[in-house]
Amino acid sequence: MSNGKLILLRHGQSEWNESNQFTGWVDVNLTEKGRQEAIAGGKLLKEKGVLPDVVYTSLLRRAITTANLALDAADRHWIPVIRNWRLNERHYGKLQGLNKAEIREKFGEEQFMEWRRSYGTPPPEIDADNEYSQVGDPRYYNLPQVPLTECLKDVVARFVPYFTDNILPRAAKGEQVLVAAHGNSLRALVKYLDNISDDDIAGLNIPTGQPLVYEINEDGSVANPGGTYLDPEAAAAGAAAVASQGK
Amino acid sequence: MSNGKLILLRHGQSEWNESNQFTGWVDVNLTEKGRQEAIAGGKLLKEKGVLPDVVYTSLLRRAITTANLALDAADRHWIPVIRNWRLNERHYGKLQGLNKAEIREKFGEEQFMEWRRSYGTPPPEIDADNEYSQVGDPRYYNLPQVPLTECLKDVVARFVPYFTDNILPRAAKGEQVLVAAHGNSLRALVKYLDNISDDDIAGLNIPTGQPLVYEINEDGSVANPGGTYLDPEAAAAGAAAVASQGK
Repeated sequence: MSNGKLILLRHGQSEWNESNQFTGWVDVNLTEKGRQEAIAGGKLLKEKGVLPDVVYTSLLRRAITTANLALDAADRHWIPVIRNWRLNERHYGKLQGLNKAEIREKFGEEQFMEWRRSYGTPPPEIDADNEYSQVGDPRYYNLPQVPLTECLKDVVARFVPYFTDNILPRAAKGEQVLVAAHGNSLRALVKYLDNISDDDIAGLNIPTGQPLVYEINEDGSVANPGGTYLDPEAAAAGAAAVASQGK
Repeated sequence: MSNGKLILLRHGQSEWNESNQFTGWVDVNLTEKGRQEAIAGGKLLKEKGVLPDVVYTSLLRRAITTANLALDAADRHWIPVIRNWRLNERHYGKLQGLNKAEIREKFGEEQFMEWRRSYGTPPPEIDADNEYSQVGDPRYYNLPQVPLTECLKDVVARFVPYFTDNILPRAAKGEQVLVAAHGNSLRALVKYLDNISDDDIAGLNIPTGQPLVYEINEDGSVANPGGTYLDPEAAAAGAAAVASQGK
């Protein structure tokens, strides 16, 4: 039997990627460019014969639409779908809705990078009555409490146990599992899969719309550490673009 | 507690609806008109406050895309999704891919209507090597045998038990359950829900993109026999258009 696979796919460009705003749990749309990225990602899956058996998505529109468009382009629109809030982007707290360049100018490079990339320090909490708070959103009714802010460590804590209990075992059994999610929820996953330290994870950037494939052994270990981008050149260019955000 | 609901939604216009071809299990796309119908159906759900908690779809692209577009328009893109081949359109046998008007001319009105609307007589079986056969399609790998033709009675036999075991109990518990499917799989369902006779079901036509709502009592019975279209005028016009197909 060939190895099972995890196929990580970060959503294509969103409206707030384009306008350079912190997004987090705010449920913005893809741009037309983002839709095309998703379709191109799906075509690449088909071309390389990496055909998902099942897809996991967050509860956010930009990841859901990316999965829908990519799977349609790969002729795998009919596979089972599982959605879970634990795949959501990191909650950006009070920064949600604010412009990245303005925050960088106002608070300085050091504070800006700490909010974006520190492992354990979350941004200030969002006020419950802020228009970009998710308190009261019906999709999260079953959570004890909707987050008011998160650091990457919080994302690891809420996502990785779900991943190891539900997603990884499917790949270990030989399935091809597509995970359509977000910059920081996928960084949390890659940190776990590649055993990256709390410090080193700051330097890892995941490009949009580029399928990243991990081959999973029967014992759940990774057969190709670091994973394999299906289009390495485009992925490298995309990661560089993410790193330069807010500049 | 308010009643649970079944929300039946037939996919919008497909490429082969437009070109007047028998479709069945052939996996054609929506037209742009069909996409707009799906979006309008979703907006209507939102406007009327009929908000799905879960969606069931067939394994066919035109129903899946309709569900995706309608749920996105209703801001319910994040609900759980369940797909099952038992919601598929009736398999049209050897007629799949053929033009309805040509078939009507070649075989006459009586034979044409028997193939389209008789309850118990299926069209001739499709040859396994016909380009429009689904034999070998990976999405049906777990079926003992992919159908080679079906009459409506066959659709009732394969869909209604799944419906009563899995879908109806959710509505009886108070959930709002969207069923995104096809002209004949939804006719099979309405036959069951409204206890329509084998003869009378021939006269029932379901319009595309028009949400049809059944309120379900706690015992699984229908509280509003015949169901309620959210836009009754548009639904009546749509049903008349379906009835006149092939003319």
